[in-house]
Amino acid sequence: MDNNTLLKKLDSLSIEEKIGQLIQLTGDFFEGDIDTVVTGPLKKLGLNVGYNIYNTGSILNITNPEKIIQLQTDYLEKSIHKIPLLFMADIIYGYRTIFPIPIAQACSWNYEGIEHAGSIAAQECYDEGVHVTFSPMVDIVRDPRWGRVMESPGEDTLLAKKYAESMVQGIQGRNLEGIIPANKIAACVKHFAAYGAPVAGREYNAVDMSEHTLREYYLPGYQAAIEAGAKLVMTAFNTLNGVPATGNEWLNRDVLRREMNFNGVLISDYAAIEELIMHGYAEDEASAARISLLAGVDVDMKTAIYANQLEKVVSDNEHMLELLNEAVYRVLKLKNDLGLFEDPFRGLQETVQRSRNSILSDEHKKAALSLAEESVVLLKNENQLLPLSKHTKVALIGPYADENSTLGMWAIKGDEADTVNLKMGLLKHVDPDNLSVCKGAHMLPANAREALGKYADKLAAETVDEEALLHEAIRNANEADVIVLALGESIYQSGEGGSRTNPTLPKPQMKLLHELSLLGKKMVLIVYSGRPLILTEVAGKVDAIVQAWYPGTMGGEALANILYGEINPSGKLAMTFPRSVGQIPISYNELNTGRPNLKENGSYRFASRYIDEVNEPLYPFGYGKSYTSFEYSLLTISQKEMKKNESVDICISVTNTGIYDGKETIQLYIRDKFASVARPVKELKDFKKVFLQSGETQNVEFSIHEEMLKFYDREMQYKSEPGEFDIYIGSSSQEILLSFSFVFLPEDEHE
Amino acid sequence: MDNNTLLKKLDSLSIEEKIGQLIQLTGDFFEGDIDTVVTGPLKKLGLNVGYNIYNTGSILNITNPEKIIQLQTDYLEKSIHKIPLLFMADIIYGYRTIFPIPIAQACSWNYEGIEHAGSIAAQECYDEGVHVTFSPMVDIVRDPRWGRVMESPGEDTLLAKKYAESMVQGIQGRNLEGIIPANKIAACVKHFAAYGAPVAGREYNAVDMSEHTLREYYLPGYQAAIEAGAKLVMTAFNTLNGVPATGNEWLNRDVLRREMNFNGVLISDYAAIEELIMHGYAEDEASAARISLLAGVDVDMKTAIYANQLEKVVSDNEHMLELLNEAVYRVLKLKNDLGLFEDPFRGLQETVQRSRNSILSDEHKKAALSLAEESVVLLKNENQLLPLSKHTKVALIGPYADENSTLGMWAIKGDEADTVNLKMGLLKHVDPDNLSVCKGAHMLPANAREALGKYADKLAAETVDEEALLHEAIRNANEADVIVLALGESIYQSGEGGSRTNPTLPKPQMKLLHELSLLGKKMVLIVYSGRPLILTEVAGKVDAIVQAWYPGTMGGEALANILYGEINPSGKLAMTFPRSVGQIPISYNELNTGRPNLKENGSYRFASRYIDEVNEPLYPFGYGKSYTSFEYSLLTISQKEMKKNESVDICISVTNTGIYDGKETIQLYIRDKFASVARPVKELKDFKKVFLQSGETQNVEFSIHEEMLKFYDREMQYKSEPGEFDIYIGSSSQEILLSFSFVFLPEDEHE
Repeated sequence: MDNNTLLKKLDSLSIEEKIGQLIQLTGDFFEGDIDTVVTGPLKKLGLNVGYNIYNTGSILNITNPEKIIQLQTDYLEKSIHKIPLLFMADIIYGYRTIFPIPIAQACSWNYEGIEHAGSIAAQECYDEGVHVTFSPMVDIVRDPRWGRVMESPGEDTLLAKKYAESMVQGIQGRNLEGIIPANKIAACVKHFAAYGAPVAGREYNAVDMSEHTLREYYLPGYQAAIEAGAKLVMTAFNTLNGVPATGNEWLNRDVLRREMNFNGVLISDYAAIEELIMHGYAEDEASAARISLLAGVDVDMKTAIYANQLEKVVSDNEHMLELLNEAVYRVLKLKNDLGLFEDPFRGLQETVQRSRNSILSDEHKKAALSLAEESVVLLKNENQLLPLSKHTKVALIGPYADENSTLGMWAIKGDEADTVNLKMGLLKHVDPDNLSVCKGAHMLPANAREALGKYADKLAAETVDEEALLHEAIRNANEADVIVLALGESIYQSGEGGSRTNPTLPKPQMKLLHELSLLGKKMVLIVYSGRPLILTEVAGKVDAIVQAWYPGTMGGEALANILYGEINPSGKLAMTFPRSVGQIPISYNELNTGRPNLKENGSYRFASRYIDEVNEPLYPFGYGKSYTSFEYSLLTISQKEMKKNESVDICISVTNTGIYDGKETIQLYIRDKFASVARPVKELKDFKKVFLQSGETQNVEFSIHEEMLKFYDREMQYKSEPGEFDIYIGSSSQEILLSFSFVFLPEDEHE
Repeated sequence: MDNNTLLKKLDSLSIEEKIGQLIQLTGDFFEGDIDTVVTGPLKKLGLNVGYNIYNTGSILNITNPEKIIQLQTDYLEKSIHKIPLLFMADIIYGYRTIFPIPIAQACSWNYEGIEHAGSIAAQECYDEGVHVTFSPMVDIVRDPRWGRVMESPGEDTLLAKKYAESMVQGIQGRNLEGIIPANKIAACVKHFAAYGAPVAGREYNAVDMSEHTLREYYLPGYQAAIEAGAKLVMTAFNTLNGVPATGNEWLNRDVLRREMNFNGVLISDYAAIEELIMHGYAEDEASAARISLLAGVDVDMKTAIYANQLEKVVSDNEHMLELLNEAVYRVLKLKNDLGLFEDPFRGLQETVQRSRNSILSDEHKKAALSLAEESVVLLKNENQLLPLSKHTKVALIGPYADENSTLGMWAIKGDEADTVNLKMGLLKHVDPDNLSVCKGAHMLPANAREALGKYADKLAAETVDEEALLHEAIRNANEADVIVLALGESIYQSGEGGSRTNPTLPKPQMKLLHELSLLGKKMVLIVYSGRPLILTEVAGKVDAIVQAWYPGTMGGEALANILYGEINPSGKLAMTFPRSVGQIPISYNELNTGRPNLKENGSYRFASRYIDEVNEPLYPFGYGKSYTSFEYSLLTISQKEMKKNESVDICISVTNTGIYDGKETIQLYIRDKFASVARPVKELKDFKKVFLQSGETQNVEFSIHEEMLKFYDREMQYKSEPGEFDIYIGSSSQEILLSFSFVFLPEDEHE
């Protein structure tokens, strides 16, 4: 449909029909006869009785293709305006083929792989009739207490930007003209803005930060998604500096729409418009509706506020009517970009047969396996305990030894029955005679199960006596050469609403680990978690640590491939692992302070330090071990002075000096030594992930240009400043292998 | 000296002499002959060899009166301009008569007592020749990890304002005309600004907050000190949103000087001008000098930057010269306000004899005792175990049982020999036969002693075997009716540079407490600390907890008076005691969020909560028990609708319903239910501390007026908004005993 026709369509709608386009309901509204609906979901949601559900613009989390066909058909029959419904769903890291959780994906530093993961999720959504996914989430996070770390690309702005861009390209394709092609769906970047920085890591808590920090670190991820063409943005639940994001006109109109040039659909997070009242920001429902429309929120997810209040709000108010028209236009435009006016089913009727073949196809599983293999981070490997030989007798012990619930909490279409779990993975490598498997301990102590409420019901009933579990574990361990301990958080301990004040391994598992450590056996710890756990105590008791995250459908196979050396681990942390909760919030890109804690000063009291803990984390950002070793050497630097349109080109050589083939992620950090706003001690500005066979040397090139030197100054101007810059090239934010300085002189001194 | 004469004096100075007024050195510069100085302190500080120390404007931390007389005499003899030296010192909570540390004082909610403490500190300073004290510190803090919690008035803005005002009035007097009378000295409010909010509680770390939070919560304390007439302000060490406070022109010129009308002397914190280089904000020393002068910093504490660089910076630059003149004028004005031009010794020569009588006089000690008694907070008192009878057999056990080092780390003139320690205090009440005293455990584990570096040397040598200490403790405990455990942090674990990731009782003391708890004896825990410690585990093992803080010279007597019921404890927490480090930062005045954790929802997952901990702290702000009980009842409310210049007048009656006389602090909190910026769930707006005999009833009046409803809106306008407000009246921020609502309608509806 061309734009003129679209505008005519808009004009043809009554106020009621227009408002309907801004409303999102769940599928149950369209089930049963009208009486059932009125007494059921309609009442529950508090929708006015007169509300015509056949004006509704979109549907949330219906993913069954037959159901979608039926709903769309019924809707188009009964609605007067014949504008197709939009079907939106929470497909975050895979539809049915579940990829590693986003924080794990970010540890792959493989953005082609991430784009591919996004495209596979989109393909499966497309095949089942979903039009919009609420992904990517690009909220930066420096606090492992927060539950949604699992959905985040981590603590770094560059990685968030890359993740945002890759996911949007994967989901929507790289067609920036606006039309979303077949096999692709619309992406929705979230949560705008700064949702990942709640006070004390407590879910939904207030966010307070300087505008400088907001612009410098938190906004660029969303911006990257918008520049990649993301059709939707979702508002955040939190207040930002006292103003709820969902009702924040400055944030959504001035920053998002004007500065960041976002022209797509802004949708509220789940019930966030209604929650303006709880925030103490809107006095009543009408006020919540008015504030949200003024703030540029187009779609009201899952509440009756727009449906019940918007007519009053816009009546006899030219300006509000104009805002309503704009919002409706954006929704219609999205439907048009998806081609729904031409085919409300987007080929669903024809592709139902094919889709059954695409979902969880071998190709999709292979991609999930590959990304899982790259997401795993080897944190410790004392005396090269890993990889294991196939002839080693292994005791696989732990609640995650034979556990399929490793998909993470937000895989709504994921099926645990599809999971290749760790035991299954190991059995692809070893003879069953060389592998014993037992649980060893309960996943959670009883009080933690209680605190998880109904989610604990989903955990396997843990009726077996704890002592019996432990005895079996010790027996198995004693008969083995190596213990592989598969421990971690329950998936319900992370994810939305999963904030933890003390993110460690659950107590029963700590006890198991301790008891087994007394046996004096070699021990490999595999950690399943949705966040960096506090592993300081644990790290001293085991020989090797493999950070598995929630590795998705193919996780067990990926881990087994790594344990047995078929795959050399290459993941690098996208988020710092603190030594203790007392170091939180923590991130590698801190400021130097006026009194940095210099090593040469020892325990000088008046330095920026703790008296009971080092400043350094347990495992820093960018860190991850390999079975092989790499050496870097500097070949050339094009110049040590750079003018405005020039670049400093660096060529280094990297050699695989070990006996295993492997991938290395070479990281380039910059430090701006003096600026009008104090700059971090280092900031990731580029990286290259390369594969090197044992003994192989490759040249790797980097190019420094002005854009990499820019930052927001005190007046919020994004600009570079002349001066001296340090370049650090290394294998993590702490292991700097090469460093040098250059001077940026934007103008010729003679000018 | 009149202002014209002062201006002429300024005009008469050479550039070198002017710059000298902005320089602060230590006394050793003036010791020995010129060669000693050049090779000693001059070289150490890096002062240019040509620097004439007889241009220097002020001296740091020289407090010996004879030395001051000698230095001033020598200086006036040798300097050409004959402008007297200023003597400044860190006298924070008492000169020789040491009061409880500020966080403790704030728990007294007795601002007359605090003003009196300030006036006694000033009196003793005056008597010994000190002109300026670097007090009060009014940095708000929500993070017990930070070491300087001990010097802070706590987490609340109203209390910080009251503390600021009372201390300035105590130190300088209430003479706002500007002349500082005899027996008073100049006050310096610090640290401007927001020094109490370092990331992760790590000393000197970056501070990042919204301008809204800065203005709403952090600035009013400094403002109150300035309004009370504080002659000086000290800059903070930290960056604020990327810009070091000491080089922050916006903060110091626009906000401090223009908005807050501060006309006095702005002094850098210790070496903070030089540290602009470490911050990466100034490229070199000249730049640090230029930036600081531009930012309005008048005096360079303890570095050679102004001395070595300022002449270059101002040469041939009219604007900079003007700034220099302004800075020098402010220093001269301060000297003039102190009457130094008339008497460079401020009566010191004549008062030396008298001062010897004033220092640590009975009257001063009595005031210190009284404030200590009001600062102690009774946190727990199961089954009314306290007060103790004089006939009870008490085993006093713990590193603080017989320890004089209870003055806190920043009492530079305090003498531990003056301390009335706990054992000495108890012996004023009980027969020695009813009291056994032993140490029970080492103050600190060996690794903590190491981490404290040279400060650990000041701790008593701990050579006795730990087991022997424990056995003695158990033996004593078994022979007693009640164990009084005197535990706590070492004073070197708090204070500047004393950040702790895990602020609990030190391990050896935890072990002692645990072992004693197994005896089944009644146990009273007295906690010495400079911050809220994490007491959750401990609280379950003892019957009573008395928070002693560092109670100063008379601490042991104050505590004994409380333990034996001569004084009924009345302290109320000025800072939240969290349940765990994972709840930090925490404060009572949080926002409601869009999904508050309502009790009726149980463990609903999608609320703002943790899954492994309650949201509530262990002991909330405003909390503190008494030996007696109080009942509140509402008598009258003048009106439930309030116009602009009206007030809502509330009268309540408070009855002491217990058998002990006692003081109660009645707290009034306001909640603004809806506003253009989300407002806290409650904010302290007023309080009254009353003394009630057993059985007595008193009426207490509060008056709500518009000023109490104001806040900073999104445009940083300080204003009120119409709407509904809740009033909560209670005995802590959680124990609300009376509540009601009123409506604020600034304009008559008919207008």
